[in-house]
Amino acid sequence: MLKAPDHQVAGHKALGGKLGPLVDDSGRFYKPLQGDERGTKEVAFYTSFSSNIKVPDHISRFFPEFYGTQLVEASDGSGMQPHLVLQDLTFNRVNPSVMDIKIGSRTWAPEAPADYKQKCMKKDRESSSLPLGFRLSGLQIFESGETGFWKPDKKWVQSLPADEVRLLLKKFVSSNTSKAMDSKPDCAFASIVYGGSTGILSQLLELKAWFEDQTIYHFYSCSVLLMFEKELASNGKSPRSEIKLIDFAHVYEGRGVIDHNFLGGLCSLIKFISEILTSPEDFATDGLLEDIQIAVLVSLERVVAL
Amino acid sequence: MLKAPDHQVAGHKALGGKLGPLVDDSGRFYKPLQGDERGTKEVAFYTSFSSNIKVPDHISRFFPEFYGTQLVEASDGSGMQPHLVLQDLTFNRVNPSVMDIKIGSRTWAPEAPADYKQKCMKKDRESSSLPLGFRLSGLQIFESGETGFWKPDKKWVQSLPADEVRLLLKKFVSSNTSKAMDSKPDCAFASIVYGGSTGILSQLLELKAWFEDQTIYHFYSCSVLLMFEKELASNGKSPRSEIKLIDFAHVYEGRGVIDHNFLGGLCSLIKFISEILTSPEDFATDGLLEDIQIAVLVSLERVVAL
Repeated sequence: MLKAPDHQVAGHKALGGKLGPLVDDSGRFYKPLQGDERGTKEVAFYTSFSSNIKVPDHISRFFPEFYGTQLVEASDGSGMQPHLVLQDLTFNRVNPSVMDIKIGSRTWAPEAPADYKQKCMKKDRESSSLPLGFRLSGLQIFESGETGFWKPDKKWVQSLPADEVRLLLKKFVSSNTSKAMDSKPDCAFASIVYGGSTGILSQLLELKAWFEDQTIYHFYSCSVLLMFEKELASNGKSPRSEIKLIDFAHVYEGRGVIDHNFLGGLCSLIKFISEILTSPEDFATDGLLEDIQIAVLVSLERVVAL
Repeated sequence: MLKAPDHQVAGHKALGGKLGPLVDDSGRFYKPLQGDERGTKEVAFYTSFSSNIKVPDHISRFFPEFYGTQLVEASDGSGMQPHLVLQDLTFNRVNPSVMDIKIGSRTWAPEAPADYKQKCMKKDRESSSLPLGFRLSGLQIFESGETGFWKPDKKWVQSLPADEVRLLLKKFVSSNTSKAMDSKPDCAFASIVYGGSTGILSQLLELKAWFEDQTIYHFYSCSVLLMFEKELASNGKSPRSEIKLIDFAHVYEGRGVIDHNFLGGLCSLIKFISEILTSPEDFATDGLLEDIQIAVLVSLERVVAL
């Protein structure tokens, strides 16, 4: 029996008669193929990637397992429809905290259709994609058995400025997340979730090294999922920190050039997370350059007037 | 006595009564302040950067020395005008080969004026900036004492596709550059110019490490100059390979975020140069992903029709 996934934090949802992904009880995730080119592009990517011998194992582990396509009763009642069959990434996880981060300051390929580019550019400009090189697409943070998850509004999350994004990345690994954004996050689980040889930072750095070299694929509008289990961390156990890449409907041929757009955004995210590990307290940024520019202007006007 | 520089490969030139930079015979370079905001922005950057104690010496050596501003007789006959006084980067060099590479897939800051952004976007799209993350702005390659330099047309250079950019980066370090693009470049000087502990790749990697960390400045429309002397290389001497960053009229505050746009483009250039060192022969890129997509489409249509 298929049902809507419990821990989906972004994307279309299979609720209220709408079309969305489904999961079964054996760890498989059924993603309806989007009707336009996107569906076939995503199948093409998984088909190419899963058989690509140039991708090393320590990198392919960051991608969901791919089990082909299958006709499945769609969640919107439209009957049997083709679905991608993938690994259910939160299967077997208990109360996972999950963050979906769309990587890249640009979510569109140069060769994409003009109207699609226009739509994306607007979203990139209105979200943190353009300034930060990534944007939060959605998240859920486990608070406690009583209060469950904190799952802020997606629209709000996507348009946050740098300082608020930094705060959410701290909140994600803090023990005092109840009452959401009110308290100063204690970053209690930062070192065990983000740090260490199996932590999220270490995984992101492995991914980065691959992106510095690979020229096979360019990933537009693709997300990295960050996942861990807070209750395990609270009990002094490994929190099963894990990153996975998802959403490949806009993957293009690399044609011998690295994916500088994805890589730049990934490096920016890495810097945010590194800073939480090395200096968890907030730091102020100054407006020095603009102050100097004003002083220069005044002094130049004086010189020219002499 | 000031005169137009001999080895300028990009930007406005002080020839034919036009406004452009000048050099003296003591190693100084006089750059007229652009009348609009750009002039004061560039002075503000040099003032801030040259006094910034957070910038380590092994990084500040990649920037021209800054000697303040000075009123100088402008090259266009408009009288005494304020100029930036900088280090003349090709002073004391004999027949330098020079390449000016504008870094970043985007040459505009998110906070730049709308009309300026529109102009830049068009140029980024029509040049290799958008696909490659950088574009060649101009170059001169020394051929021989008889034929002098090969200095291709700037307009042509700026719009080259990836394969031609790769070819020019090979040509730059080849001994058989006469007759320009006709012969297959032999990459005779690749290992001595690009490679080694003091070569260009090594310097670019040092710069990259700084960009992975620094959140002080964002450099838009800034260029990296690659320079060396072919005659020294031919005689088995060190070719004085050097990189320098130039053009800071569009530097903005980093505000705690890395310059992911510059970093991505720099990594792309690094990959091009690394490949010339490791596999100088051309390699073919395949259109595998698109072929698979067509196959997927056909098979899905068949499945749904059943």
